[in-house]
Amino acid sequence: MTARSDAEALDARDPLLGARDRFVLPDGVVYLGGNSLGALGAATATRVAATIEREWGDGLVASWNGAGWWEKPVALGDMIGRLVGAAPGQIVVGDSTSVNIYKVMHAALDLRGDRRVVLAERECFPTDLYMLEGIRRTRPAIDVRLVGPDPDELAGAVDASVAAVLVNHVDYRSSRRRDIRAVADLAHAHGALAVCDLAHSAGAVEVALDEWSVDFAVGCTYKYLNGGPGSPAFLYGATRHLRDAAQPLSGWHGHARPFELTGEYEPAPGIRRFLCGSPPLVAFAALESALETWETVDLAAVFAKGQALVDLLVTLVDECCPEVEVASPREAADRGSHVALRHRHAYGIVRALAARGVVGDFREPDVVRLGLAPLYLRYVDVVDAVEALREVLDEEPWRRTDEGARPTVT
Amino acid sequence: MTARSDAEALDARDPLLGARDRFVLPDGVVYLGGNSLGALGAATATRVAATIEREWGDGLVASWNGAGWWEKPVALGDMIGRLVGAAPGQIVVGDSTSVNIYKVMHAALDLRGDRRVVLAERECFPTDLYMLEGIRRTRPAIDVRLVGPDPDELAGAVDASVAAVLVNHVDYRSSRRRDIRAVADLAHAHGALAVCDLAHSAGAVEVALDEWSVDFAVGCTYKYLNGGPGSPAFLYGATRHLRDAAQPLSGWHGHARPFELTGEYEPAPGIRRFLCGSPPLVAFAALESALETWETVDLAAVFAKGQALVDLLVTLVDECCPEVEVASPREAADRGSHVALRHRHAYGIVRALAARGVVGDFREPDVVRLGLAPLYLRYVDVVDAVEALREVLDEEPWRRTDEGARPTVT
Repeated sequence: MTARSDAEALDARDPLLGARDRFVLPDGVVYLGGNSLGALGAATATRVAATIEREWGDGLVASWNGAGWWEKPVALGDMIGRLVGAAPGQIVVGDSTSVNIYKVMHAALDLRGDRRVVLAERECFPTDLYMLEGIRRTRPAIDVRLVGPDPDELAGAVDASVAAVLVNHVDYRSSRRRDIRAVADLAHAHGALAVCDLAHSAGAVEVALDEWSVDFAVGCTYKYLNGGPGSPAFLYGATRHLRDAAQPLSGWHGHARPFELTGEYEPAPGIRRFLCGSPPLVAFAALESALETWETVDLAAVFAKGQALVDLLVTLVDECCPEVEVASPREAADRGSHVALRHRHAYGIVRALAARGVVGDFREPDVVRLGLAPLYLRYVDVVDAVEALREVLDEEPWRRTDEGARPTVT
Repeated sequence: MTARSDAEALDARDPLLGARDRFVLPDGVVYLGGNSLGALGAATATRVAATIEREWGDGLVASWNGAGWWEKPVALGDMIGRLVGAAPGQIVVGDSTSVNIYKVMHAALDLRGDRRVVLAERECFPTDLYMLEGIRRTRPAIDVRLVGPDPDELAGAVDASVAAVLVNHVDYRSSRRRDIRAVADLAHAHGALAVCDLAHSAGAVEVALDEWSVDFAVGCTYKYLNGGPGSPAFLYGATRHLRDAAQPLSGWHGHARPFELTGEYEPAPGIRRFLCGSPPLVAFAALESALETWETVDLAAVFAKGQALVDLLVTLVDECCPEVEVASPREAADRGSHVALRHRHAYGIVRALAARGVVGDFREPDVVRLGLAPLYLRYVDVVDAVEALREVLDEEPWRRTDEGARPTVT
């Protein structure tokens, strides 16, 4: 096994080592759940307190203008834009990822009004499919067709009946990464739109929405972006669609002139038309603090380190834990920044690792999912995690633990 | 004019005087914007910090279960239930008021599938109408008919073609209060459903959703409930509808077994089926702190004080400011806890009052809107506010101020 001292040497020359100081991590914990809930930033609690005490407490209702609350959905969206390759004015923050999927898929269907087919992924995070079911409640003519992970299967399924292709950039379970540029090219070649769910890729791997000509995208801010539990999601709409795009959650925050309080809805001219109601400003404060940390780092270095951490983990698991199957792609370019390990006692392993301070999560039916958030993890954390895994495999504690409790949330 | 000493005497024997200590209000400010953004609770910043540092920072992803995050939408909903007369298990907190209107109106339309007409109010807060427009994007057969404030006009418009009646309990501008029990009885007599928007009544006046047989309701938590800027809204669904009600924002948080991550959506058995995606837990912490203050007060005393404050304001305006028209109902039972004052220089008056530390807001075209949140306002605040209004009317500062800036948000 790679000596811990080798990992320490890698950490010592890591250009991102200082970024770890911007986070608060509990003592004795190797946190491999950052792909599910990102760690707390060191500046976040203070920033939120300032928003609460100064902007809300002192500024009161005048802070909608005075503290820029009204502009936050776009301002935070532009900060995220840098992380996902989107020029300003194409991203808003607000609502949940699920709600945003609903908005963009309606918008895509409207823009391709003569087409009825939506292609989606059979193995995607289920809420994508649940939202498509919701769309079909009022658009029953829509035909949702599901494809597997093989790019050839997707390629074979796109034709002139397809309105939109909805794919996840990185699969929540397997970590498989789609070539989104290829998906967009394929969709466009058949006159369809490309919609991308970035939940498990934003902040984990390179994303270039503009360059890849993605039409719409949604993403999560509470995973690698570290916005806090349940922090509002983001929504990308390419500039070329913003004049004509419409969506049914047409609340007053998306109105062209919300303060005139007219009876007729008129969508705002740009990306704001994807807003709906008032956003949670206290949650926004935590997200803004997290995004400020992102502004201080070199993205290429972050993504390279994420791949190096995963490479190290895969190498060590292969070497030390042969009874565990690495169920994620072995090529860095084909995966995200988390790893799926398969074992029939996956749930017991996750619990036993947690008892040793190594926090990962379990995914049905047999996956130990370990996230390697490059902003705050070190190479030694990977070594320690695999060492703990080896111990757990040797001790087989699931033989005596209660495995009936509910697993944690994604 | 009522002497300030009389108001001081009223404050001295106010059973709610102690509640003011649970809030942080800026020095020298008479805050009459609590109907727009409620004041900050004294315990809120600390509570939010604890959620951030302990639940997020230390507990990390395990807090979804360990800190009860998964249960918060219903737990907070039950706390709100006491304030609006709803037995437990019928309210969830999450998403915005606008999004929740979308959910409940779709649900109501599905439950009355053979009917096409929705009755709504011409003068309601416009987002209600915007969301109905959004619904019509995918249900173009729906016919939205608008009625004025007169109850007789509503009564004359309900017939067997009406699926649902959507009314605001208290009008956001005029403060006019509907008799919701009568609306529900009327709707039910014609086989229609009654849907109520409580944005300007929850925490301001008595609400008895169960007793009045309301079918669905939505409400705002950042006004009288003091949940913080943009804090998530609530949604009520009467128990009798929860088995059959469906809504199209069918995200994984509303699934019966979200952790099985199956491909098919199956709605949760109770009110949880109205949830969609992950809620903002940091914002929830602020709301929970505010709701804990509500648990300490006698609701009847709160609502009685609100009416007494409004009565005092109306009396003083009539007496001292005859050039201002009281545009709200004069009977306490017919209005909420805010007052609309009409004057052609309304916008200039609002700005000049703010410069004197009296914070209200402007509503198009000519309304000075003053909210009297009974939890933290005193009778002397009312006297001081009217004195400032008298000064402003005498000095006519709008003759020299720039009135072009954008007004504040509701």
